[in-house]
Amino acid sequence: MPESPVCIVGGTGALGFGLALRLGLAGVPIVIGSRDGHRAQEAADRASEHVPEGSFTGLENPESVRDAEIVILSVPFRNQSETLTNLKGALGAEQLLVDATVPLAAAVSGKATRTIGVWQGSAAQQAQEMAPDGVRVVSAFHTVSAALLSDLDHELDEDVLICGDRREDKARVAELVDAITGLRPVDCGPLELARIVEQLTPLIISINVRNKVRAGIKITGLGSH
Amino acid sequence: MPESPVCIVGGTGALGFGLALRLGLAGVPIVIGSRDGHRAQEAADRASEHVPEGSFTGLENPESVRDAEIVILSVPFRNQSETLTNLKGALGAEQLLVDATVPLAAAVSGKATRTIGVWQGSAAQQAQEMAPDGVRVVSAFHTVSAALLSDLDHELDEDVLICGDRREDKARVAELVDAITGLRPVDCGPLELARIVEQLTPLIISINVRNKVRAGIKITGLGSH
Repeated sequence: MPESPVCIVGGTGALGFGLALRLGLAGVPIVIGSRDGHRAQEAADRASEHVPEGSFTGLENPESVRDAEIVILSVPFRNQSETLTNLKGALGAEQLLVDATVPLAAAVSGKATRTIGVWQGSAAQQAQEMAPDGVRVVSAFHTVSAALLSDLDHELDEDVLICGDRREDKARVAELVDAITGLRPVDCGPLELARIVEQLTPLIISINVRNKVRAGIKITGLGSH
Repeated sequence: MPESPVCIVGGTGALGFGLALRLGLAGVPIVIGSRDGHRAQEAADRASEHVPEGSFTGLENPESVRDAEIVILSVPFRNQSETLTNLKGALGAEQLLVDATVPLAAAVSGKATRTIGVWQGSAAQQAQEMAPDGVRVVSAFHTVSAALLSDLDHELDEDVLICGDRREDKARVAELVDAITGLRPVDCGPLELARIVEQLTPLIISINVRNKVRAGIKITGLGSH
C-alpha cells in the first residue's frame, strides 16, 4: 500500500468522491483536489464524516498533486484538457497519473450512451500526450458505479480494467485496486486499449437504463485471482 | 424455443461451429451455411458426431437461410459485405439476422487487439444497411470464446450482450441464448451500441494474451436473472 497520499483530482465529483471514500477506508491517505480549494476542503470534511478513521485533505488542484506518487484524474471529459494544462507545472517525473476520464458525448450536450472521438484515440492517450515528460499514464476505474462506491453498505464485487504501457505502473494501480474490498484489477493491455475500455462506461449506462440497475463488469475465466 | 431451424451462416468457422454445437445440444435444429456446400455438410457431420442427439444439416449459404426464422451471421469481417450481398435474394422479410461479426484489424492484416472503423459505425449497422427490407438485425455473441463453446466439457458461465432496435427481436435472441446452459442474455440497448460491444472482442483477446486465459464478460448488478 502507498504510504504517500493518493491525490484525486476531481475528488469533489461523484466518481472521485466514491474512490476517496473506499481508498480512505482501506487506509490510504487521500488528498482531494479541485479547482476550488474550498470545495476540496468541504469534500474532505464530508469524507471524514463517512470514514472517520480515514485521512482526507482538500486542496486546490496544483497543490493537491505535490506529494502524491499516484494522482487519479477523475474529471468530466469537458474539463480534462484544461485540468492537465493547469497541472503542467505541478506534476513531476515519476508521478503516476491514473486517468479515469470518459469522453461521453454528454460533454458536447450529446447522450451519455454515446462517446465522441478523441484525436489521440482515447482520453487516456490525450492525458499521456499532455502530461509533462516522465509522468506515466495508466487508465482505470471506468466501469465502477460512483453511487455504489459511495454507498459504503454496498458490498462491491466487480473488476477494474487497467490499461497502460508499463507492467510496473499497472502493478502499482492494481495494488491500489486490490486495497478496495470487492474490486479486482484486470490487466487489459497497453494504454491504447483505453479506446475500448472508455467505451464501457456508455455501455454500462445503457444497460443501467434498460435494466434499472447499477451494473459493473466482470471478466470471466481468470480464476479466483 | 424455435422449432424452425436456426441457420448459422459461417457455421464452418470456429465461433459458428461452437454455437451450432451448443444450440444443437439444446434441441434447436441447426442448418450450417457455408460458401461451399461440401464444407457445410462436412461441418454438419462433425457436429453430429459431437452431439449425436442434435439435428444438423449443411447447405450452401443461399439455400441454408431459406427455412430459418433466425439466421446467425458468423463470418470474418473481411467476408461480411460479400456474404450479405450474396444472401440478398435469399433472405426475406420477417427473418431475424443475428450479426456476430467483429471488425478486427486482422481483416486488413492488422492486430486482433485493434479494430478498423466501419463507415456505418459497426459491423451490425453495416449488416442492417445491407439486409433486404424487412429483415431486422440484432447484434450478439461477440464475447463468448469459440474454443469454450466447442469444448462441451466446459461449463459456460458468462453473459451474451445483445443490441437491437426492437425489444421483441432481442427477446427472441435472448430466448436462444437462454437455451444454452451457462449463458445469460443482457439487453445492452439499441443496435448502435454494437459499436461498443463489437470492441469487446479485441479487448478480450488482449486480456487473453496478457493473462493466458479464455476470458468472457459478465455484467454485475443484474441479480440472478
